[in-house]
Amino acid sequence: MIQSKGYAAQSAETDLAPWDFERREAGTHDVLIDILYCGVCHSDLHAIKNDWFPGIFPMVPGHEIVGRVREVGAHVKKFKAGELVGVSVMVDACLECENCRNNQEQFCPTGVQTYNSLGKDGLPTYGGYSNNIVVREEFVLNVSEKLPLAGVAPLLCAGITTYSPLRNWKVGKGHKLAVVGLGGLGHMAVKFGVAFGAEVTILSTSESKREDARSLGAHHFVVTKEPAQLDAVKSSFDFILDTVSAPHDINLYLSLLKTNGVYICVGAPAEPYVIPPFGIIAGNKVVAGSGVGGLAQVQEMLDYCAENNIVSDVEIIDIKNIHTAFERMLKGDVRYRFVIDMATIG
Amino acid sequence: MIQSKGYAAQSAETDLAPWDFERREAGTHDVLIDILYCGVCHSDLHAIKNDWFPGIFPMVPGHEIVGRVREVGAHVKKFKAGELVGVSVMVDACLECENCRNNQEQFCPTGVQTYNSLGKDGLPTYGGYSNNIVVREEFVLNVSEKLPLAGVAPLLCAGITTYSPLRNWKVGKGHKLAVVGLGGLGHMAVKFGVAFGAEVTILSTSESKREDARSLGAHHFVVTKEPAQLDAVKSSFDFILDTVSAPHDINLYLSLLKTNGVYICVGAPAEPYVIPPFGIIAGNKVVAGSGVGGLAQVQEMLDYCAENNIVSDVEIIDIKNIHTAFERMLKGDVRYRFVIDMATIG
Repeated sequence: MIQSKGYAAQSAETDLAPWDFERREAGTHDVLIDILYCGVCHSDLHAIKNDWFPGIFPMVPGHEIVGRVREVGAHVKKFKAGELVGVSVMVDACLECENCRNNQEQFCPTGVQTYNSLGKDGLPTYGGYSNNIVVREEFVLNVSEKLPLAGVAPLLCAGITTYSPLRNWKVGKGHKLAVVGLGGLGHMAVKFGVAFGAEVTILSTSESKREDARSLGAHHFVVTKEPAQLDAVKSSFDFILDTVSAPHDINLYLSLLKTNGVYICVGAPAEPYVIPPFGIIAGNKVVAGSGVGGLAQVQEMLDYCAENNIVSDVEIIDIKNIHTAFERMLKGDVRYRFVIDMATIG
Repeated sequence: MIQSKGYAAQSAETDLAPWDFERREAGTHDVLIDILYCGVCHSDLHAIKNDWFPGIFPMVPGHEIVGRVREVGAHVKKFKAGELVGVSVMVDACLECENCRNNQEQFCPTGVQTYNSLGKDGLPTYGGYSNNIVVREEFVLNVSEKLPLAGVAPLLCAGITTYSPLRNWKVGKGHKLAVVGLGGLGHMAVKFGVAFGAEVTILSTSESKREDARSLGAHHFVVTKEPAQLDAVKSSFDFILDTVSAPHDINLYLSLLKTNGVYICVGAPAEPYVIPPFGIIAGNKVVAGSGVGGLAQVQEMLDYCAENNIVSDVEIIDIKNIHTAFERMLKGDVRYRFVIDMATIG
């Protein structure tokens, strides 16, 4: 077995704390990775608090993982020791079902999540808040040496979660895109939207992020609590990407879509969306859910980011300060993603 | 002025009753139509009861109109006296805004509905429960002499409301389409879905319409209250077209969509849809609203129906029996659309 050091929640009621545990040896098709950085995703906190469904404890969260290959199994072809790699939210799937055949392994009914899931061996998976991880070759991504590595980590979840719908809906030149929520996901949505050629507007509840929006490349900034600003953008957007994971009313935003406009939800609030039928029937409007992308799209996104010099804006933290980071994340006090420097795990 | 006989509600609290009224003379760009048949749409009842918003009274409902041109204005080019024509849910629009330029006059912000609306002259519009109507040329549709005329009337609303989303979403060969609600809209959705080459399933709460579904051409029939039948179609549909206008829970149905599946809402219940975020985020699912089509698409649909011998299944009624028809419609006791024979208006 591989000895691992991590930070785990022993139950939904306890804080994360250091935990030594074992991972499986790298099998013939596996890659053993020394983790260098792991992003802190809002869903890590949802998971350890059982916000969505009862979790598997002890739980080591983390699914925005970058590191270097330490060792590969005998049949591994794509990777060798010393290379930079990444791991996203999934570490296994059947690779045979319709979803898998369509490069949508993220929706495989027997898919295995990077943590809080049971692997094909029946044992719990443990995530990236740890010093190493063993992953089946197909679920390991190539990471370029060109980019600052800490900024790459959040691409594995926040990046792909925003890249995927913008690509799937072919958002680009000639489109007006609004982004709701300027956090970890939102700031990546702005970067991708601008890179793809869309005219990007931030819809914000307050003035405070106007300067940030500009420096991220957004073309416009609208304070949604100001009626005059809101009126000026009625029926004007082709797409709205909603990254907010707190409960919120989306009807206000639906009225800002053009005819045939698409409202893309990636934020996963704990409360349901409440949609008056005429809010979508008038104007043939669309409310589209979107999860992360499949493996091929995650790799495409990483390659695109390397070519176009796109990374997440990050604040690198010592893992001992993870609780302060969670508290600040809940208040939106992070620009724009905390990333754990795994050297600090000691 | 043109003398008209209609059936009107004098207020939201009164029943429809005979009413003599005047319409404008046919102007130089107008067509005066003698109405032969008018379909009875569920929204007629919503409108006269103020279910959606306060109406304009007296109200003459009816927007599934077919008749013969009696007279045309001096500048009318497309029509001449004696021709069969139809009128749908709209009778005017600016024809200059972005929606109008994109052949989506139905979403023109200054569009005028066939009834319960104010015309460009500031006067209320009166619908098809009457012996004649005056309509601006652009909003009059060509109707073929080939089809049984009473069955054509419901195409002007029930027909286009189902044809439009199936065309816009390119539903056809290789797709599995489910239809929720086998009423006026639903039975047209089955006919169009089958004609476009899709594999069509009716999702019904009861066994009672199984034979009807088969005779309409549906390939499968699933009773959604039977867990085994429901399990058999989990994650199986590319598209679900929901025609139900009574409040209902759509989450059950979302689970029947494949990855990337599209749930199309045309039924306009008075209660909002309640959608748990994971119901659409898991599987990149889409909830799409859809109204009627624009003028070009309504004409395309009428032409398609003439070529493919498609009409609505109707029960022709005497206008004096309109209240019985409303009562039966509310109970779903109609196969599948009541159509008023306007000769009965006396």
